[in-house]
This record gives sequence, C-alpha cells and structure tokens, in this order.
Amino acid sequence: MATIKDSVHDHIDVMGVAEALLDTPALQRLRHIKQLGTVQLVYPSANHTRFEHSLGVYHLADRALDHLGIEGKHADRLTAAALLHDVGHGPFSHNIESLTHRYTGKYHDDVTELLRQGEVGDVLREHDLDPDYIAGLIAGEGTYGQLVSGELDVDRMDYLVRDAHHTGVPYGTIDSERLIRELRFVDGELVLDEGNVQTAESLLLARALMNPTVYTHPVARISKAMLRRASERLLESTDTTAAQLRRMDDHDLLVALRHTPETETFARRYDTRDLLKRAIWAEMDAVPDSIVDADRARLSELEETIADRADVPETDVVIDVPARPSMRESTSRVMVNGEVRSLGEQSPLVQTLRIAQERQWRLGVYTTAAQTDRVGRIAAAELGIDSGEGLISEITHHGVQARVDEFDG
Amino acid sequence: MATIKDSVHDHIDVMGVAEALLDTPALQRLRHIKQLGTVQLVYPSANHTRFEHSLGVYHLADRALDHLGIEGKHADRLTAAALLHDVGHGPFSHNIESLTHRYTGKYHDDVTELLRQGEVGDVLREHDLDPDYIAGLIAGEGTYGQLVSGELDVDRMDYLVRDAHHTGVPYGTIDSERLIRELRFVDGELVLDEGNVQTAESLLLARALMNPTVYTHPVARISKAMLRRASERLLESTDTTAAQLRRMDDHDLLVALRHTPETETFARRYDTRDLLKRAIWAEMDAVPDSIVDADRARLSELEETIADRADVPETDVVIDVPARPSMRESTSRVMVNGEVRSLGEQSPLVQTLRIAQERQWRLGVYTTAAQTDRVGRIAAAELGIDSGEGLISEITHHGVQARVDEFDG
Amino acid sequence: MATIKDSVHDHIDVMGVAEALLDTPALQRLRHIKQLGTVQLVYPSANHTRFEHSLGVYHLADRALDHLGIEGKHADRLTAAALLHDVGHGPFSHNIESLTHRYTGKYHDDVTELLRQGEVGDVLREHDLDPDYIAGLIAGEGTYGQLVSGELDVDRMDYLVRDAHHTGVPYGTIDSERLIRELRFVDGELVLDEGNVQTAESLLLARALMNPTVYTHPVARISKAMLRRASERLLESTDTTAAQLRRMDDHDLLVALRHTPETETFARRYDTRDLLKRAIWAEMDAVPDSIVDADRARLSELEETIADRADVPETDVVIDVPARPSMRESTSRVMVNGEVRSLGEQSPLVQTLRIAQERQWRLGVYTTAAQTDRVGRIAAAELGIDSGEGLISEITHHGVQARVDEFDG
Amino acid sequence: MATIKDSVHDHIDVMGVAEALLDTPALQRLRHIKQLGTVQLVYPSANHTRFEHSLGVYHLADRALDHLGIEGKHADRLTAAALLHDVGHGPFSHNIESLTHRYTGKYHDDVTELLRQGEVGDVLREHDLDPDYIAGLIAGEGTYGQLVSGELDVDRMDYLVRDAHHTGVPYGTIDSERLIRELRFVDGELVLDEGNVQTAESLLLARALMNPTVYTHPVARISKAMLRRASERLLESTDTTAAQLRRMDDHDLLVALRHTPETETFARRYDTRDLLKRAIWAEMDAVPDSIVDADRARLSELEETIADRADVPETDVVIDVPARPSMRESTSRVMVNGEVRSLGEQSPLVQTLRIAQERQWRLGVYTTAAQTDRVGRIAAAELGIDSGEGLISEITHHGVQARVDEFDG
Repeated sequence: MATIKDSVHDHIDVMGVAEALLDTPALQRLRHIKQLGTVQLVYPSANHTRFEHSLGVYHLADRALDHLGIEGKHADRLTAAALLHDVGHGPFSHNIESLTHRYTGKYHDDVTELLRQGEVGDVLREHDLDPDYIAGLIAGEGTYGQLVSGELDVDRMDYLVRDAHHTGVPYGTIDSERLIRELRFVDGELVLDEGNVQTAESLLLARALMNPTVYTHPVARISKAMLRRASERLLESTDTTAAQLRRMDDHDLLVALRHTPETETFARRYDTRDLLKRAIWAEMDAVPDSIVDADRARLSELEETIADRADVPETDVVIDVPARPSMRESTSRVMVNGEVRSLGEQSPLVQTLRIAQERQWRLGVYTTAAQTDRVGRIAAAELGIDSGEGLISEITHHGVQARVDEFDG
Repeated sequence: MATIKDSVHDHIDVMGVAEALLDTPALQRLRHIKQLGTVQLVYPSANHTRFEHSLGVYHLADRALDHLGIEGKHADRLTAAALLHDVGHGPFSHNIESLTHRYTGKYHDDVTELLRQGEVGDVLREHDLDPDYIAGLIAGEGTYGQLVSGELDVDRMDYLVRDAHHTGVPYGTIDSERLIRELRFVDGELVLDEGNVQTAESLLLARALMNPTVYTHPVARISKAMLRRASERLLESTDTTAAQLRRMDDHDLLVALRHTPETETFARRYDTRDLLKRAIWAEMDAVPDSIVDADRARLSELEETIADRADVPETDVVIDVPARPSMRESTSRVMVNGEVRSLGEQSPLVQTLRIAQERQWRLGVYTTAAQTDRVGRIAAAELGIDSGEGLISEITHHGVQARVDEFDG
Repeated sequence: MATIKDSVHDHIDVMGVAEALLDTPALQRLRHIKQLGTVQLVYPSANHTRFEHSLGVYHLADRALDHLGIEGKHADRLTAAALLHDVGHGPFSHNIESLTHRYTGKYHDDVTELLRQGEVGDVLREHDLDPDYIAGLIAGEGTYGQLVSGELDVDRMDYLVRDAHHTGVPYGTIDSERLIRELRFVDGELVLDEGNVQTAESLLLARALMNPTVYTHPVARISKAMLRRASERLLESTDTTAAQLRRMDDHDLLVALRHTPETETFARRYDTRDLLKRAIWAEMDAVPDSIVDADRARLSELEETIADRADVPETDVVIDVPARPSMRESTSRVMVNGEVRSLGEQSPLVQTLRIAQERQWRLGVYTTAAQTDRVGRIAAAELGIDSGEGLISEITHHGVQARVDEFDG
Repeated sequence: MATIKDSVHDHIDVMGVAEALLDTPALQRLRHIKQLGTVQLVYPSANHTRFEHSLGVYHLADRALDHLGIEGKHADRLTAAALLHDVGHGPFSHNIESLTHRYTGKYHDDVTELLRQGEVGDVLREHDLDPDYIAGLIAGEGTYGQLVSGELDVDRMDYLVRDAHHTGVPYGTIDSERLIRELRFVDGELVLDEGNVQTAESLLLARALMNPTVYTHPVARISKAMLRRASERLLESTDTTAAQLRRMDDHDLLVALRHTPETETFARRYDTRDLLKRAIWAEMDAVPDSIVDADRARLSELEETIADRADVPETDVVIDVPARPSMRESTSRVMVNGEVRSLGEQSPLVQTLRIAQERQWRLGVYTTAAQTDRVGRIAAAELGIDSGEGLISEITHHGVQARVDEFDG
C-alpha cells in the first residue's frame, strides 16, 4: 500500500490495482497537465494538476465503494476507472480538447486505446481487468459507471473542492463526505437517499457559483481561446499531428509554441500575460443560431476572413463561442417520499439556474488593443451580430486581477 | 490598542471607543450567550458566543470603513454600533427573543436604554457619542446604519462564516473580504459595485443553504421551542419578570429552569437531550392563516387547551410556528450598467429561493414519544390542520445527528 | 449508527456501545463544561466543550483500532473508554481539579464509581463490559490503556488540534492522521513505527508551543487561580460539599458564585473581566522548594496570613504555584533500527524542552491593582521569595489581549 | 490598484511600483518555475510557483511596512525588492542553483544585471528607484534589507505557510501575522519586540520540522540530484550555456532534457518517476571533511571516476552532498528585558536544533536498482567513506509516498 499526502483529502491510501497503476507513464504524465489550464493567469495559485485530481477522485471512489458495500471485482474496476479517468487529457486539459480530439476521433475511443496499450494495459490484464470495460466505466456506462461519470459522480466532488482550495475562491466548498454517505443504488440508478434534495442543490449551486468566477472567468476564456488558436496554427504550420498534440503535456506544448515561428508571437503574449482584448462581447440573443452552433472548423474560417478583411495577422483574431449551457446535475436523482425523482423535477432552483446560465453566456471576439474597434465592426458584420445592446467594443481590465466584472454587461 | 486573536478573522485590532467599550459589563456579558442557542444540540461544536461575533462584526465594519474612506466621528459611531449591536440579546439569543421582548416593549427601545445607562453610556459620552444615535445605527437607520443592519450588513457577513467555522457546515463560507471591497455608497444607498450581481447572489445562497441545515434544523427547532415554553412557565410560575429574564445570560436561565419545580422537567430533558417528538409536522398549505399568523399569546393558549384535552402536563405540548419566510437580501442593491438595481429585480434566483423557503416551512407540534398519536390528533383538530398529506404523526431521529432528513416530507 | 458533524474531524460515526453511551446524562453533561475553562478570557473563540472533545477522542481511537487491527471486545472496551475518559471532570475542567478531587479522594476512584452507576453503568453491563476495567483503561492501565492515556494517546492528538482550531493559535496543528497510522504494539508497548522520531518530536513541540501561548497564558492563569480561590470560599462558607462541587457544570458553579455573598465579588470580577493583578511573578530559582512543593491547603493558609497582614479581604490574595514541569511525551517510544527506544533517549530536543519549561515556570501572587505593592512585599517575606531579580511588582496588561508578553521577564 | 486572489493570503492589493512590475516578463516568468522543484514527486499537490510566492512576500512586506510606519521612497524600494526578490531564480529554483550560478558568477551580480535591464529596469527608473539599491535590499544589505533577506524576513514567513498549504504538511503553519506585528527596528537592527522569544522559536521550529519532511525529503533529494546531474550533462554535451540555462523556466529545461540524447534517459526516468536508488547513505561522521566540503566540480569528477570503475553510464552515478547545516534563525534578535539579544543566546533550543540537524545530515550516492551493491562498494572506496555503521547499501521505497522513513538510520 502506498500512502500519499494530499492537500485536500490529507492521507490517501492507494492499494491493489490502483497502486500498480500509480507509476505507469500514462498516469505520471498527468503531473505535467494543469487541472485548470489557463485559469492560473487569473488565480495565480491555481497550479494543481490532473495527477493530484486523479488521486482525489480515486480516494472518493474508494470511500463511496466502502459506503455502498461494493467489493471484489466491481470495486477493482471502479477504482481503476476513477484513477484513470483523465488519462486521455491532452495538454492544458479541456482548453484545447475540441482541437486535440476533433481531428482524431472520439475521446472515448482514444481512452479505450490508451487503456489497452503500454504499461496500463499490462497492469489491467495482470489484475484480470478488461481495458474496454474500464473505458466504459470512464464514459459513465453501466450501473457503476454513474459513480465515475454521471450527475452525482466523484469527479465533480473532487474538483469543486480542489479548485476552491487552490484558487482561494470559497464557492466550491461542498460537503463531499456527506454526499458520498448519502449515495444509494436503487433499481440500478445512483441516487441520493431520502432527505437530500438540498444536498443535491448544494452541488448544483457550487458549480453555478464557480462557473463565472473561475471556470469561465473572462481572462481565463481569452487566454484559453488564444491557446487554442495558437495550437491550431501549430497543427497547420508544422508536421505536428493532432494525435501527437494530444499526447503532449503542458511543457511540450508551451515550448513548441515558443519555438515555432508561426506561434511564437502567441507564446510571447502568453508568457508575458499580454493578452488580446475584447472586440465583441455579445449576449446569446444578439448572436445568430448558426454561429452559436458553429463547429471549430467554421469558426476558424471566420477568423481568417475577418483577419483578412481587417488586414491583421491571422492569429490576431480569435473567436470564442462557448457551448450552449447545460445543467447536467438537473437529472441528479434523489429519493423523495420513497420514490426516485430527478432534481429538476423536485427543485425550483434547477430551471432558474438554467436561465441564469443562459443570461451569462457571451460570445467573445478578441484582438489586439489597437484594433478592437475595427476588428469589432468587421466581425459584427461577418458574424451577423446585432450591433446594438450586447456589443461591447472595448473593456479594459488589469492583468492578474481576479475580479468578475463583466457578467452583468 | 488591544489585539485579539479570533479563530475566524485572526488578529483583530480594537481601538478608540471600541477599546473602551470592550471591558464594559454589557459587552462582557455576551461571552455568556451562545451565538446559536440550542443549535449545539445538533452541531456539538457550535458553542461560539455573541461576544466573539460582536468582535467579528466590529472588525468587518472597520474594514468596510477603511475601504469606503469613512473616518472621524462617523467612523467612531459606526464601530461603536457594530461592537454593541447585540447587547440587547437575552439568554439563548434569538431563541426566546419573542418572549423576552414581548412583555416589555420593543427591542429597539431596550437597546436605546442599555446604551444610555451604566458604563456603556459613560464611555459613549466620554467619546462624545450620542447613545440614541448609536441605537439608531444598530436599528439600521440613516445612510450608515445600512452597514450595521441592512441587506448588505457586516453582521451577516460575520455570522455566516463564523457559524460555518464552528458547526463544520461549509455552506456559509462566503467571500466576505470581496463583499466588503465592493461596497459603495451611491446617493445614500449602500450598494455593491458594478459586476457583483453574483457576489450578492452568493450571500443569498449561503443563507438559503445554512437555513435548513443549521438555523432551522428540526432538532434545533424542537429544543428552541421547548426552551421558549419552559421560559414562559418560569415567568408564569415565579416572580421573575420579562425584564429580568432578558438580562439573564445562558447560565442564569439554565440554572433557574433547573431549580424551579415547574420547569425542572424541561431542564432535565434539555440537559440529557431527551427531546420531545413531533406530533404534527405540517406544510403551510395545510395550516389556516389564522394559525400561521397567530402571536405567541394565542399559541400559548392553544398549547394549554390541547394539553388539557389530551390530559397531559402543560409543558408536554409545544407548538412551533415559524415566521412567514422573508428574503431580506432580495432588496440588496447592485450596480448594473451604471444604475442601482435591487437584487430581486436583477436575479431570477431571488424569486425561486422565496418559493423554496415557503415549501420548506413547517408547523410543528411536539410532545413526548408516548403521546404523539393522541396529541397529534387533538392538535390537528384544535389548529384546524388538514390531516391529509403534510401531517406526520411520528418521526424518529437520533440524538445528536446532524442530518437534514425532513425537508422533503 | 449516529453520524455527528464535528468542526475538527468532519463526520464522526458513532456505533455500538458508543452510540448507546452518547445520550447518557453523564456524557451529555460534558456539553456544559468548557474544554479550556478560563482560557476564553484570553481567546474569545475558545468555547469548545469536553463533549465535542470526547467525540473527537472516540473518533481517533476508532481510527487507531482500525489501523492496529483491533476488533471485538477489546475494541468495544477501548471506544467506551475513549468516549467516557472525561466524565469525571468537574466544572471548568482542570481549573479547579485540585480542589474538587482533593477533598474527596482520587480522581480514578471517582471515575470508577461514575462508570458503575446510573445509565452509563447500565449501558456498559448491557454490552457486557466491566465498568472497573473501562476505568482502568481510562487510567492508562494495561496494554491498550496506553491508547487512551499515555505518551502517545489519542486524547492529546485531539485536544492539540481542537484547541488550535478554536483559539486560532496555529501551533497545535499536528498531523494526527500520520501519528495514528504509525502506531504499533511491540511486546505490549505502544510505539511509533520505524522512521518516526520526528513525528514524535512534532507532538512534543506542539505542546511546548501551546503551553505558554494558550494553556498557561498569564491571563488564563490569573483567572483560573481566582476561580479556584472563589470555589474554595464557596466550600468553606456554604454547605456545598466537594462531592457536590465536582458534579456541577460550568453554569451551576458560575451561578452559585454569583449568588453566594462570600464569592459574589469574585463572580462580578470574572463576569466583567476585572481581573486581579500580579503582586509577585517569580522564577523557580527565587522560590524556596517548600513553596514550590506546597499543597493547596498550605497555600490557602498562606493566602489568609498574607491577606490578614496586608489588611485586605481574604479573596484579594491569590497564590498560584504551577506544578513542576513534567514532559510526559519524553517517554514516548519509537522504533529505531528495529529496537524500541524512548524519545528522551533518542531526541536531544527532550532535555532542552525540559530546561525551557523550567525557565518558563513562574510563581504568581495576585491582588487588586491598588494593593500590588504592599501585598507583594508582604507575600515575598511570607513565602521567603528572593526579592531581587525575578520579582515583578506590577505588570499592566489589557483585557482580552492574547499576547504572550511575560515569558522572558 | 490590482487585486489578486491568493490561496494563502486571500486578497492581495498590488499598488504603485509593484503594480507596474507585475506584468514585466521577468516577473511573469516566475509563473513557470515551481516553488519547490522536485518536491512534487513526494507531495503531488506541491505545484505552487515562485510567482505566487513573490506576491505573498510582497504582501507581507507591505503589512510589515504598515506596522513599522515606513512610507514613501523607503517603502517603494522595499515593496519592489520583495516582489522582485526571486527574479534571478533559474528553472526548478534552488534545485540546480549551484549549477546555473557556478559557471556564471555570483547570484547577486546576476540579480543586479536583471534589475538594470529590460522592462524591470524601465519601471524602476520611471519610479525613480535605483536598480542597484534594490538588488542590495534583495541581498539583505542595509537596515531595511533585513526585512527581505535576514533572519526575520518576510520571505521565510511566506514560504513556510505556503509550502504547508500546498503540501498538506501542517508543520509550517506559523503565525505570520503575529510575527509581523512584533517586528521593530532598534538601533538599525530588526528585532522582535519584548516577550517574543517563543515567537522567534516557533519560526525556527517550523523550519526544523519542515526540513526533513518536505525540503530534504529523500525522494526530493534523489530527484533533485538527478536533475542537477542531467543539467550538467546538458551543459557539457550541447551548446547550451550556463547563462542560457539560468534564464530557462521549468518547461524549457524539461523539454530540453527530453530532446537531448545525452539526457533523455534522465528525462524518461523523471517523467515516469523511475528514480535512482541509494547506493550509499552515510552520516557526517563517516564522511571525510574533504568530501563534505567538496565543490560541485570535484563531485562531478568523482561521479565520472566511480561510473568508469563500475562500468556504468555516467548519468547512473549521482553523488549528493548537502551543505553543512546552518541555522540562520539562531541570530534572530529579540528584545529581552529592554535589551536586544540573539535568539541563540537566549533560547536553549537553538543549539539543540543545530545538533539535530547535524545528526540528520546524510551523504547520498544513487544509482540504478541493479547496481546499488557494486556502485556502493566502489563509491565508498573512492570517497573514503567508513563502510561500517552509517552505510546503507539499499533501501526500497515506493513512488509518491510522503513518508519520512529514513532519518533515524
């Protein structure tokens, strides 16, 4: 048994197949991928990695199995899945996910492949565990998969608390121990036991508060969009493939961007926190549906067109279109008076938070400070954005400032 | 300058009039009044006092004054008001407030009187501060009074964090430093600066989550209702007056209840945590408006009638009717696009939380375990409660258990 | 199973005999006894009770049993002993211990009696546990008794962390989880496993730092000495017996002192924090051995003599002689190169800390501010104290100030 | 004013020259240098950077200036020095410091040069601050330099608390606020005010406990020694110069090691945590003085000789000789009875801790698992190490385990 000291869960005992997986290259690689990517440009302390998060998710899964009385093979599979659930992540985690996995097929297929091969595959087979089955659990398949990837999964319970600890933003501080103690399986569904509507709501609210303050903070969004744009250029202008890109870690990508002529401007900007500025900041109502739902390839074309028309370098125009708000926790199931109900059915908060999220949605177009006016005008025309209310041509905000000043515009 | 070490705010510097007030009997008395009264029967660590809370409120007021650039006489008045804002509290704080102040006039008049007299009055006059003006600030009067008692007051900012620290329930962990930094006065109104709709919401949500988990936890409610009933008996059966009662501290009241024949049964029950059980637990819809709005005197009569009809001792029937839900924070003001708006106007959450609170409202009738059925039936009839859904004749729950099992019934 | 939320250990599961003991009057009484007695006059947040500490000690014992693989009857006995270890405490805990138990025999006999009788005795017998055996464990007897009361006991592991949490003083923050994980039984001795000399030292150092800052802070010592003196007066001037005194809780004692003419002055001073001042503050070298080792009865006589000669009321002279420093942790056992060694043998720190403690030792004589000079002179003569260096006739210090200004005098 | 949210100090206000320095490349670069280098291989959460530490040191300097009443030009210089104090750090901070600055002159000269040039130099001159003077403060020169680099400096106060927060090891949790409040200047010397011998001791003890548990944890030492050896190889086998090396950040160095044939084995080992094992682990008594005091060049020669004789690749032999223990805090000055004394003079702990540190000192020779015996024998002969007690030829220990198992051997 290995015992690891964690800043969030204190001592974590790693046993059995998990211990054997711990020193595989695929898992150790996660030490070099930041949990929150570019968020550290907003919150300087947010340098925690996917590795410590994976340990935390393993730990909570282990606690949950203990409470649910799950043992033996099922437990082995689940702890393996919990520990491995992020091995598919590319550099900067979700930041360039759309990119690394767009060119090369589904994330799930990639994880399956990773689990079959190399030392991870060896360890799984030595412990008589089927890599494909583990990949299924990671994708939330089957009854027990809900624990790893679902509305009440241990992934979320770890990251909310961990991100709060490392950013210093208190909103994510949920009562994970209570959540785990109240989990039950009822007819194959993972539910919170009687009397926990509010417990489920607390999880929902924690994420609702962490979202704009941390995960989609404007500065994090701008830098993430810049990173994605630069990585696209890297793929286009060098012989680096998407398949190679997604096996890089944060170091590899940053150094590659620094050393590639087509991306070195970006790298310098990122390194010196000299970020692009907003040319457009538009509410959902002001944006045509075709743009809201456009894929990355289409947006990339638009970036080129706008840059071309504005006569600025291609990398100086970055379009950032967040996904339509989802609220996965709304289908969390809770026992109410002896029957299973979805949280969305039971709690008036769910619908309200969905509305709030839609109101917070913003499309951003970013460019250099000197060009916000011109690029903003051209981009509004190209994207078909209503240039009335909801269009902001310039907002100044200081460097590392962690304020959330922009959500009510 | 005195420096005091606080478990929540670390070092607190106490200066000027505040330092002189620190050792007055009226303030030192607050060391002997628990902040959360009977909540320690649910959360055993919740033994913090009104004294440390008063220091915390003083500290936050001082920080706010610093940020708002308020100095001199106005600052002296406000820090005095912050430190003194709870001197009027009787034993067990809000638990028997309705009782201590029902018989003897308004809380505000009482505070005014307390500030005029004794060492507090002397200190205020020595520092050229008008006791009546300070009492006004404590009541939230005037522009600056909003800081001490209002929708965005420092009282709330302290108690949410402090109660979270001492109970172990994380929900109250707001970002008080950010709240204070964003306060502004605009046309005499205290508002949160531009970009803080979500900051205001976080305050609202913290209270919405702390309410059922801590403040109105069923066990806290039962014990509080028992304490109030016993104190009523103390007033009726001894020559103790309400004016004397409200100057007692927790020690005085508990010992008085132990030594008075009419209340010693209660005292034994309280001391051994042998609490009454629910005979009725009814939703608002099932309760006639006349009962929801009944005053304490009317409820006291009903308790006697029901006890009489059920042939049980008077103290064995306790009716507990919470106030109609309010949501004071809904009128918090926030700057949005350069104009002052109320949070209720701006945030869809406010209306939703109001609805949630109404759904959580429950009338309780408590009696001894053996009599819940009989007392329940008689009480339902007397109170005109619909005996269908919403009426629960018995719920078992263990002693010190801090679970919130009852809010979805 | 009951689950209790604790501000230090989060959720505590209480099972088996421990759950049955939880609601006994003897245990519930500990809710009304502060863990640190008068220390709250220095650290206003230090209002935690023996009840939550007892739960914490139970929790750590349970963790230790789990790690040591102890089950069944032995485990039942140990968890009962851990939960019950403080039931013998009188009001204000150790503050007047010398007094409550001086008149009425040994603490151990008292605990044995308490465990035999009432609901506790019933519960123990129902679970087939011998009260005398449990009392033996509480006294540290037998192999397993070392876990409850010994150099490496869970009592200390809880109180250091808990006192740090509630006072805000960080020094007690030990790594209790690591300590518990490293415990082993070797030939019937409780030891820390190989490689833990430093772990053992950290426990020693935590206490060495908490001692002067918290436990023997001058203001805590003065108020404790006053409390003891007043309680003595209560015993002498009323028909309250020592046996009754030690069954009181904090409320009973404070109210009794308020209502007894001979002690009401003390009560008023305590309530308003109007504490006596130092007339003498003397190092060990300056004090005759006969005084250092005098028992309470002898000191009481001396207080009367000095008061008489100085012509002041008897309660205005208080002599405070701490016990000679001990360093119980110095006999902690640690595995070193495969053999059991005592920490004192292995660590050069132990001897040094013993010397430091002796240098910090101070005899105090306290009286009212106006009389420090006269009482100081007379007391120095009566006690045979060298009136040169080491004698301080007056030190002023403010009310609730948590500073440690006096240890280098 | 920029406000930055920090996980340790909460909100940090950055003003004046500090705000202007914040976005300079030299400072932003520190985002990419881990505070504790390879310690993250032991404590997976220890990923904090020199950037957030620099902000923390700036913050504490600002607090100290406030308490000491220092304003104007002196304050500007000091806050600039505090923020800039680590700009000279190379990749992995202190881990390869001996290397980066051995070849290229003194660290101090390097810092001076860095402050004169580029944006930092521009900002300093714009604010009328002399770069050389600031560099002097960073080196601890002059009266005020003691605040930035001295026995009681704010650097230490930040890193102890920050490292504790991020590793999860509680020992570093000092009371930094108290330390800062007690600082005084007496005759040009920075001292702790009367009554703070113990406060000074607490700082010393925190470091004494953090040292073996965190800073010199065996796994951190092995990986650091490997990193240094690999970096040496990089300098020898490529055209990278020491001057270039010390301007790299962590990303640059890791990627360079991965892509250089002579170091890629190391890089693979580091990335997969496949660390070398101990061939020798020797106490100071067993090691000739000439080896204890040998410089890096001499040790490098010895590594080659041993590798050659053992017929293994050069990078498979790593010698790790820690500096002789120092105890800088021992000269901390504290007011005692009105005069300034050094802590070493006043506290018996200082001498003891020095002895303890010497006993903890170990020379390590590391090689691959298969060769520990052979390399151990040859190295013992070459280094003249007494092969009796104190020589350990093999110790196994697991990957990420944060245990301190080796300090009593």
